[in-house]
Amino acid sequence: MKVSVLFSGGKDSSLAAIMLGQFFDVELVTCNFGTLPTWHIARSVANELGFPHKVLKLDPQILQDATRLIVNEGFPKNGIKFIHWHALEYLASLPDIKTIADGVRRDDRTPVLSTSEVMSIESRFNIQYIRPLEGYGRKTINVLVDMYFEIEEKKGDLMIGAEYEFELREEIKNLYGEDKVLRIFPRDHTHSRVIKMRESKTS
Amino acid sequence: MKVSVLFSGGKDSSLAAIMLGQFFDVELVTCNFGTLPTWHIARSVANELGFPHKVLKLDPQILQDATRLIVNEGFPKNGIKFIHWHALEYLASLPDIKTIADGVRRDDRTPVLSTSEVMSIESRFNIQYIRPLEGYGRKTINVLVDMYFEIEEKKGDLMIGAEYEFELREEIKNLYGEDKVLRIFPRDHTHSRVIKMRESKTS
Repeated sequence: MKVSVLFSGGKDSSLAAIMLGQFFDVELVTCNFGTLPTWHIARSVANELGFPHKVLKLDPQILQDATRLIVNEGFPKNGIKFIHWHALEYLASLPDIKTIADGVRRDDRTPVLSTSEVMSIESRFNIQYIRPLEGYGRKTINVLVDMYFEIEEKKGDLMIGAEYEFELREEIKNLYGEDKVLRIFPRDHTHSRVIKMRESKTS
Repeated sequence: MKVSVLFSGGKDSSLAAIMLGQFFDVELVTCNFGTLPTWHIARSVANELGFPHKVLKLDPQILQDATRLIVNEGFPKNGIKFIHWHALEYLASLPDIKTIADGVRRDDRTPVLSTSEVMSIESRFNIQYIRPLEGYGRKTINVLVDMYFEIEEKKGDLMIGAEYEFELREEIKNLYGEDKVLRIFPRDHTHSRVIKMRESKTS
């Protein structure tokens, strides 16, 4: 059975992919608006994990709407959820897709979907939507990540993966200037990228 | 790393154990109040799955308190959660336990713990508490169960596993009579037991 996993190349979606690989034929899917080539990094991590990878081009209108929402609110939480929701719906709407997944964790602050939002996507698109990390706390996930991966972590705006944040920052910078970006996004927020699988886990 | 999984011998806790076995040294734990030998069945399923199994004797006062709660309310939901909560806390309090887990699903109606209740147990006992099925809907779980197990399902009071319900029914029958049991527990509620691992999964 195939599962399509929304994938940034970071530690959470990589761990979710490994977990699902126990049961499913995993296909990794990176969404991109065409403003920054964030998917390059995701592709290289996908190769390292050994899963097929494809890139989905999302409607740039979604990026513009999320940008307006974020600028109006002054913080990125709901705009990031807005993009994730549209990415999930677009993936779920594709004709050959029956099961989708992502790397959202129990302790994430965004994108957080309620169980009824998850079930709404499942029933409207007649698909199954798995969140394999939903039952795991941050501490447990860090232990598992460390068992499986060597990772790189960076704070702030350095693009090291295909999180929606990077194209959002670019869009806000182009429309409102760099100062606006710095006022909206927390400077100490960390992004991660998987560098490689640990050797004991690749055999 | 060791994880202690609350285990009834049913399909959900069996699937949770298989999932956790990808990453952890799984130990199965069945709780029992000493009024019915429910743990016998759990032990035989544990042997079939190939995981070590132990039985934890819970304080009979917990069963009595849960029974009173259920009889007062007229339905079993909160009494079952009450027992599960005490089972989790007792397991978490044991000196050599660092990580606990159970087979609670996203779509379960009982025992349902909120994320803050889960995190409360984690922080008070300084342990990690994993719910591996929390991110999976009923339909996906049925597919995975069918991939891994041959199961038996029975409705009502036929004891085919170590769910708390069986000792609760026995306690209510002894104190209030069989009629009370029939008024409180839904007749169409199904219990499951794993009969064996599918051959393709045991090699």
